Amino acid sequence: MSAQAPHPTLLIPGPIEFDDAVLQSMSHYAESHVAPGFVKTFGETLSMVRKLFQSTNPAAQPFVISGSGTLGWDFVASNLVEKGENALVLHSGYFADSFAACLETYGANATQLKAPIGDRPSFEAIEQALKEKPYKIITITHVDTSTGVLSDVKRVTEIVRRVSPQTLVVVDGVCSVGCEEIAFDEWDLDVVLTASQKAIGCPPGLSILFFSGRAIETFKARKTPPASYYSSLANWLPIMQNYENLKPSYFATPSTQLIHALHTTLSQITSRPMSERFAAHRQASDRVKAAVAELGLQQLASKPENQAHAMTAIWLPEGLAPPDVLPGLLKRGVIFAAGLHKEVATRYIRFGHMGVSITDPARGDVDKAITALKEAITDAKQAKGL
Amino acid sequence: MSAQAPHPTLLIPGPIEFDDAVLQSMSHYAESHVAPGFVKTFGETLSMVRKLFQSTNPAAQPFVISGSGTLGWDFVASNLVEKGENALVLHSGYFADSFAACLETYGANATQLKAPIGDRPSFEAIEQALKEKPYKIITITHVDTSTGVLSDVKRVTEIVRRVSPQTLVVVDGVCSVGCEEIAFDEWDLDVVLTASQKAIGCPPGLSILFFSGRAIETFKARKTPPASYYSSLANWLPIMQNYENLKPSYFATPSTQLIHALHTTLSQITSRPMSERFAAHRQASDRVKAAVAELGLQQLASKPENQAHAMTAIWLPEGLAPPDVLPGLLKRGVIFAAGLHKEVATRYIRFGHMGVSITDPARGDVDKAITALKEAITDAKQAKGL
Repeated sequence: MSAQAPHPTLLIPGPIEFDDAVLQSMSHYAESHVAPGFVKTFGETLSMVRKLFQSTNPAAQPFVISGSGTLGWDFVASNLVEKGENALVLHSGYFADSFAACLETYGANATQLKAPIGDRPSFEAIEQALKEKPYKIITITHVDTSTGVLSDVKRVTEIVRRVSPQTLVVVDGVCSVGCEEIAFDEWDLDVVLTASQKAIGCPPGLSILFFSGRAIETFKARKTPPASYYSSLANWLPIMQNYENLKPSYFATPSTQLIHALHTTLSQITSRPMSERFAAHRQASDRVKAAVAELGLQQLASKPENQAHAMTAIWLPEGLAPPDVLPGLLKRGVIFAAGLHKEVATRYIRFGHMGVSITDPARGDVDKAITALKEAITDAKQAKGL
Repeated sequence: MSAQAPHPTLLIPGPIEFDDAVLQSMSHYAESHVAPGFVKTFGETLSMVRKLFQSTNPAAQPFVISGSGTLGWDFVASNLVEKGENALVLHSGYFADSFAACLETYGANATQLKAPIGDRPSFEAIEQALKEKPYKIITITHVDTSTGVLSDVKRVTEIVRRVSPQTLVVVDGVCSVGCEEIAFDEWDLDVVLTASQKAIGCPPGLSILFFSGRAIETFKARKTPPASYYSSLANWLPIMQNYENLKPSYFATPSTQLIHALHTTLSQITSRPMSERFAAHRQASDRVKAAVAELGLQQLASKPENQAHAMTAIWLPEGLAPPDVLPGLLKRGVIFAAGLHKEVATRYIRFGHMGVSITDPARGDVDKAITALKEAITDAKQAKGL
């Protein structure tokens, strides 16, 4: 039984439903950001971020910064790429366009490798592109929130290491961290950036990044200063190192309450093997995908191997648009998201199935949503005479 | 009687003690950032930001963005100054150095007009500097949190309008908005930037800015694109306008829970005339300053007219450092801050007196702190044989 006020179940690809204890942490009383109590909370939080990424390499570095997930792009673009350097952006939906725009803002030459909607660039195309010119970084949207397309980060990284070993592998994990498998050290990644409000299950407002030692060294070898002030790794690195070593430090006031909530959710997440968490999301995803198929509906993500496990982007039946279906879902106590990919936004809806809705099956969120989807689609078709 | 767990009273210059209702808003259940309920909350919040600045000019524009107050500097530097343009930075403590560093990161030529510690640049020096070359912006730290020095924003703006009318007046109001008088329209200001966690009384994590029509037009006349992506006014302007017009919109996921808390505190603040709030802070400040003088202690801010009304930076007696005094305060249930200005940090402490600690006198926070300060100083002197 939840301590929260009654409300429709939020099943969009972030923000998501919150665990009661996480939400209660948001109401923590006022604390100084440099007092021992909070310093310990923040330091432990950073150490748990290492576990979240299954990393034990002390050269790797976690960052937790006040801001939206979007800020993570600025952090990468302003610290790891210098004016005129090349970035290869793998495109599997809306978010690659934005990441490329961010990279160009800071002077990078961003080359997008585009796939048709619902697909991701092929391994062959990636290998080919990497051979054409030297790239400082390659960016991969692990799960594109606009399409639900999953990228194969492990395999792409293997290609990079074989063909262009110095290229830094940057993963946009906003919609994947905490639900899709990521083995930072083992896969030899350089950066994963994410946000607090998706599968991590914390309210929105924190940008979370994890840098390899190689990425930190690349930053330190810059010929020009970082191109941003608030996102400057030079400004944040000593702060993060100090907090993790339980030393107070100041560059900008951290979001004390959000850090408490992140501490609570990461304590829950890291108390169990990450593999268990990934498996739970895969199983729930299989049930959702089977139900969608049973309804005769198709997903944007076109093949089983490129379908995300914590969200499903669903084409609506011909003749239906999100406003025909979403109110019927809401009437049944469930909130899905409308389409987001500009070219096809009016033709699909998105179902987020991650976090407590998955790890606490007693909530019954997924079953409720599947039933509601079935009924809402049937009602909408009837109303339109389809 | 507070609903919060027992804790020492936080009387630093931000974060500050929270009103119960504000803190409870932080635990709001999960909502979509584009659903009607949240859109209304955010839209109303933006409208209340106008009232906070006593502005009725529809050309002015509020921004509320996930991030620390520091992000406000990037927002100004990356949108209002182009590479090679001049910025005049009035220095009244630590924060001007940082603002100047931020401006230079984005290519501005920042000229600092420095005052001795505890003072602010003279009106004559400001006028002289403005006559020497054309400045795109002038920045004023309204209250420098490191020194407690108050600037005379109204008078400086009058000088600017007389001597260099096109120069944009940018006020760093992180430690002044909600406690020091600001009449945005009447004083003809261009930008005030602030953060959620000081006199506004919301937990940290929101960067709040208010732009004049002139500042927006200056942005629109840029010859080069904005120098940041996350801080780009081009990215945020339509979002803020849409939310205030109750239309859902997406650039980056807003901090939904923090926005609820900001809505609650701004509802409280704007339900009374702002003049009342400023007067309450002035009265409390007078009491604190009188008590400090009675203890034979001096303030960093050297003259009555340059002393902030919501914090007091207090020189410790010769031979005492913050670690000699702060534990004695904590033992008495009160938290002050150590010094922050690098050159003299070990020689002074900072007492923040703002927000609910002032507007809810039944809490007795200021009296408790004054008594604790008296006793802690006496104890520390005895312990050191002074």
